Amino acid sequence: MARIITISREFGSGGRTIGRIVAQELGYNFYDRELVDAVAAESGMTPKFIEEKGEYANSTRSFLFNLAITGGTAGSSLSMYDRVFIAQSKLIKQFAQEGSCVIVGRCADYILRERTDTLHVFVHADIKSRVERIVNVYGETDKAPEKRLAEKDEKRRVYYKNYTGTDWGNMRNYQLTVDSGFLGIEKCAQLIIDCARE
Amino acid sequence: MARIITISREFGSGGRTIGRIVAQELGYNFYDRELVDAVAAESGMTPKFIEEKGEYANSTRSFLFNLAITGGTAGSSLSMYDRVFIAQSKLIKQFAQEGSCVIVGRCADYILRERTDTLHVFVHADIKSRVERIVNVYGETDKAPEKRLAEKDEKRRVYYKNYTGTDWGNMRNYQLTVDSGFLGIEKCAQLIIDCARE
Repeated sequence: MARIITISREFGSGGRTIGRIVAQELGYNFYDRELVDAVAAESGMTPKFIEEKGEYANSTRSFLFNLAITGGTAGSSLSMYDRVFIAQSKLIKQFAQEGSCVIVGRCADYILRERTDTLHVFVHADIKSRVERIVNVYGETDKAPEKRLAEKDEKRRVYYKNYTGTDWGNMRNYQLTVDSGFLGIEKCAQLIIDCARE
Repeated sequence: MARIITISREFGSGGRTIGRIVAQELGYNFYDRELVDAVAAESGMTPKFIEEKGEYANSTRSFLFNLAITGGTAGSSLSMYDRVFIAQSKLIKQFAQEGSCVIVGRCADYILRERTDTLHVFVHADIKSRVERIVNVYGETDKAPEKRLAEKDEKRRVYYKNYTGTDWGNMRNYQLTVDSGFLGIEKCAQLIIDCARE
């Protein structure tokens, strides 16, 4: 039985919805927005700032590089991004310690990589399904949703690379990856629950 | 219901065994060794040659490059590798047309990419599980099984790249990827059957 489930996901793939279903079915805590609010409370920054900076890169200079040039001290030379990452990492580890949970995004797979009671999942989908989802479900009104998807994915990819040194969406880092465009949201949730119960 | 299931796999991950279980459970044809024999019969080459050349690269010059420099004619300038690939592709398409089946390896996911009645799966596992498997199940006696695994994977990767122009093991090309080291052979087979029945 996996006590902790991390769900990484492409933007618009429904990974958050899938995570919520999995958490409800298993009776696990669910951390997504909840994590944003907790990081905000911990760091004194606003939830809006955390949401924007906590998963999307805006710089190509990596956290690992910053740590290296500061000699590993999390000192005053660290950026606001780095501070958010540090606060997030601390809380993710704490939540994982406290009880069974599903955590969506935020490099949780990497942050919890040394635990053995985890199931790491990645949810992806074809562009067409994701565009449909962000327009119909998220209510996005952008005139070029494909471009927005590509930008969001790229920012997540760079963020992940910056903070983990490894590639976002490399299936070898996940015990299960699912295509929600093909399988559907409900089926993906079922598969994850099925694996978690193993 | 997916009528055709392709299973790509890392060497030693048990993908072939998983494919056999799936085929048996669903009552589908199963093509692995069977495909080697059919290609041999079709091409006049020996099964041993097909097995060696039909999935492992031995050259960095790609099929697509060869086709380009010969102006797209599959003429006498094509290598034995290329001839095996062409014979394999033809048979894979034919088998897929003839009836429900599970096909293991041999770029079948790419060759059948335009069909819509398919489920494409990739099976991977950590090095430790794969070493255990090739030593205990396949009976490999090599003194450096890790090195052998790495070489086999690399040859499959290069072969795939040469013949498809895309990356081997990119999860976005698969509706499902599973870690057989973590989930176990039986569970992986069940998950695939579950998705195929969807």
